[in-house]
Amino acid sequence: MTYCLAMSLEQGLVFASDSRTNAGVDHVSTFRKMRIWEKPDDRVLVVLSAGNLAITQYVAALVDQGAKSDDPKKNIYLAETMFDAARILGAYVREVHGHDAKHLKEHGAEFALSLIFGGQIKGEAPRLFMIYSAGNFIECGEDSPFLQIGETKYGKPILDRVVTRDMDLMPATKCALLSLNSTIRSNLTVGLPIDLLVYHKDEFKVGVHHTIREDDPYFQKIGQLWGEGLRNLFQVLPDPPWGDEV
Amino acid sequence: MTYCLAMSLEQGLVFASDSRTNAGVDHVSTFRKMRIWEKPDDRVLVVLSAGNLAITQYVAALVDQGAKSDDPKKNIYLAETMFDAARILGAYVREVHGHDAKHLKEHGAEFALSLIFGGQIKGEAPRLFMIYSAGNFIECGEDSPFLQIGETKYGKPILDRVVTRDMDLMPATKCALLSLNSTIRSNLTVGLPIDLLVYHKDEFKVGVHHTIREDDPYFQKIGQLWGEGLRNLFQVLPDPPWGDEV
Repeated sequence: MTYCLAMSLEQGLVFASDSRTNAGVDHVSTFRKMRIWEKPDDRVLVVLSAGNLAITQYVAALVDQGAKSDDPKKNIYLAETMFDAARILGAYVREVHGHDAKHLKEHGAEFALSLIFGGQIKGEAPRLFMIYSAGNFIECGEDSPFLQIGETKYGKPILDRVVTRDMDLMPATKCALLSLNSTIRSNLTVGLPIDLLVYHKDEFKVGVHHTIREDDPYFQKIGQLWGEGLRNLFQVLPDPPWGDEV
Repeated sequence: MTYCLAMSLEQGLVFASDSRTNAGVDHVSTFRKMRIWEKPDDRVLVVLSAGNLAITQYVAALVDQGAKSDDPKKNIYLAETMFDAARILGAYVREVHGHDAKHLKEHGAEFALSLIFGGQIKGEAPRLFMIYSAGNFIECGEDSPFLQIGETKYGKPILDRVVTRDMDLMPATKCALLSLNSTIRSNLTVGLPIDLLVYHKDEFKVGVHHTIREDDPYFQKIGQLWGEGLRNLFQVLPDPPWGDEV
């Protein structure tokens, strides 16, 4: 499984992804799920992927191949808007579907993928999309400032409680890491390292870009403080008043 | 959807279930998912159910019908152990499967159910089981003191962090309610009222038994304090040290 999330905030974008891939518990590996296409002073495009690894790698390879083309419908470096770039990605997803879906089905496997796609192209504000297996997509709106793919549920309560579009990028990054921390703790199929990318609006270059491993002091520290803080908070909440009813 | 959980602790058992049932968002209703069979001084048996409502109601009706029989393989009041009672429930699940599964399949529906079954029969310690669609079951062990069915993921991180077999029943009840609070907050298909039951070991009668509605002052209070506490805790955790890298 996988857990990736991204936030679309007033000050920019935050992306985070785990790197655990499994096909049954006997086949657990580490694969990066974050891919970046950057052209300084012009655009930063980021894709996070969940689903069948063969499919997501195929789509990424087509994007890379298309990046050498002169055709603005194939080359995400030539797309004029994020919407156009999302359409290019959707078209590649459909190309892989045409190529693989029937064969997967013969082997009882689903054509399963989902992508988070975000970034900024000069002339536009930063934008964030979710692209589905069918190659269609939605854009993240004002009222729901984050998108998640993969094993999304364990890490959603903290996002629901904390994330707002006007929050600063570093607190938002902290929140993303706590969401991943909760997920990794409760689900074996999501694991370190975490790829983290923070994009500051109108910079047109990657801002913070870190790979967070087991020994990362900040990730260790907030994980420990968060766990202790939750247990302390739990302790100080009043017990139910029904204890003496028996 | 549904969310039910139960804990098997040294001092007894805690059961909690929501009561939202939906078949698509156009058909959202309130149905209780907790059923109790009690014979004071002899046994308390509790079932929490998730899955197709027609199936879970059918199983419960068979249990009620069987409770009039003289056959200890059909009557959970005559079962000598919780294991025997779980076998009776499993047999009823299989009876409903034989009756309905083929017809459901013709309509594209799965035979989907899961039950949490717990309680105490005189002569034994309290025990807790999970019964599957196939009528087979597992028993909750020393190392994993809780079981969940339905929409389990949102509310699992708090359980993973807090629940231990030696905790008192009222703190455990508080934890169960916080787990439901997080789930209800993040998932529309899980909703109030909550049925709550606390069984004290060797009492052989239902201890606390409450229906918690919107206006329950304790549930409101811990929900509010938990939300505020989480946001405060989030604020005081240090921000990532990478903010000045850009």
